[in-house]
Amino acid sequence: MDVDAAVFDVFGTMTDWRSSVTAGLADIGGRAGLDADWPAVADAWRRRYRPVLERVLSGELPWRPLDDLHRLMLDDVVAEHGLDDLGEAERDALVQAWHRLRPWPDAAAGLEMLHHTRVITATLSNGGVGLLAGLTKQAGLRFDCILSAELARSYKPDLRVYRMAAELLEVEPRRLLMVACHPDDLEAAAEAGLRTAYIPRPLEWGPDAERVDPPAGVDLVADDVIGLARALGATG
Amino acid sequence: MDVDAAVFDVFGTMTDWRSSVTAGLADIGGRAGLDADWPAVADAWRRRYRPVLERVLSGELPWRPLDDLHRLMLDDVVAEHGLDDLGEAERDALVQAWHRLRPWPDAAAGLEMLHHTRVITATLSNGGVGLLAGLTKQAGLRFDCILSAELARSYKPDLRVYRMAAELLEVEPRRLLMVACHPDDLEAAAEAGLRTAYIPRPLEWGPDAERVDPPAGVDLVADDVIGLARALGATG
Repeated sequence: MDVDAAVFDVFGTMTDWRSSVTAGLADIGGRAGLDADWPAVADAWRRRYRPVLERVLSGELPWRPLDDLHRLMLDDVVAEHGLDDLGEAERDALVQAWHRLRPWPDAAAGLEMLHHTRVITATLSNGGVGLLAGLTKQAGLRFDCILSAELARSYKPDLRVYRMAAELLEVEPRRLLMVACHPDDLEAAAEAGLRTAYIPRPLEWGPDAERVDPPAGVDLVADDVIGLARALGATG
Repeated sequence: MDVDAAVFDVFGTMTDWRSSVTAGLADIGGRAGLDADWPAVADAWRRRYRPVLERVLSGELPWRPLDDLHRLMLDDVVAEHGLDDLGEAERDALVQAWHRLRPWPDAAAGLEMLHHTRVITATLSNGGVGLLAGLTKQAGLRFDCILSAELARSYKPDLRVYRMAAELLEVEPRRLLMVACHPDDLEAAAEAGLRTAYIPRPLEWGPDAERVDPPAGVDLVADDVIGLARALGATG
């Protein structure tokens, strides 16, 4: 596939948010003397994500940084799961868990391979620029550029986010590849004129999750980021 | 010095624009059968830079991408130097020379040292995001993040550019270090509340250029990017 740049979803596609956030909850919750089914709490937190973004995109909620939305969702999840003893500082620390997500095992190696091709790589995430710069540095994910929906003061899957990425990278939308494990992200990218690559992340929602099928009409399916890099001409 | 992030000027501080642009002029001009004092043409082009930015910042010219401004300036310089035989495609190719500037010899090694500290590094340049992503990749300059004045639809030394960098990186301005070889860049950064580091680049305007003194009140003076990295706690 001949493209000039590739932009990557981060939460889920490049990083294992579930095990990272579960570990953060177990750590901070445990130190607060609480016990819970922490993976279930992590899942409940993440499940509130899309409905909240939809409220922002519909105009019902004003745009605000993802950290603030994560905090709003967490307050609801905490109440639901009887974890009201978590204090302000602990809740803020939990929001920070989304800044330190563990990469999937193939992500760093695949990006390094792509770095040595002519294809420019960038994040294209709903996380903020600061979150992404810190997360990718700590996780060893070498992107050539950090792009965030924050720069459009919106969130994916708003088409303006994908168009902004093409404009900022100075590439034609059809020379820009969106890489994600989430069909709705790829469908929106395709609607904005981008090419699309699907990477399955069967463990995103844990070992018992339902299988996600590649979206219809996707341009490329790769096993992981290393496979994607090879499909884009990388060697190694 | 204790900071959370450092942002870097690129044209002059991290890259040797003069020898790179001179080589581009000599190559493209030579192939067009032209001869000129190419370093003098490069200098004349660069000297038009600040006056044109001032016209944009004063509102006299509307904001537009740096490539477009480079082209405007080039058309004037071409006329001045009797190089009118340069065609459209050649002029466009010359504007692209600013996308492929050579790094100073210490720049890549210093950034690599900083990458292994907790200090987040980013560009903060008047070049656009696409230009910077391509330039830094090609030059082997490993930044954790790409920031451009384009994201504020302005140009340095507009104070909004420096404040935007602090906001996007989610750091207090006084925990953010601006690194540059240009006193006016550092003076504006200081006025915006940032800390400042001066790196001399005595060869920026060629071997016969006048010496530039560090600006008064600068927080740090380093010999080069390696020295800066050491001052920020990097080892190696």
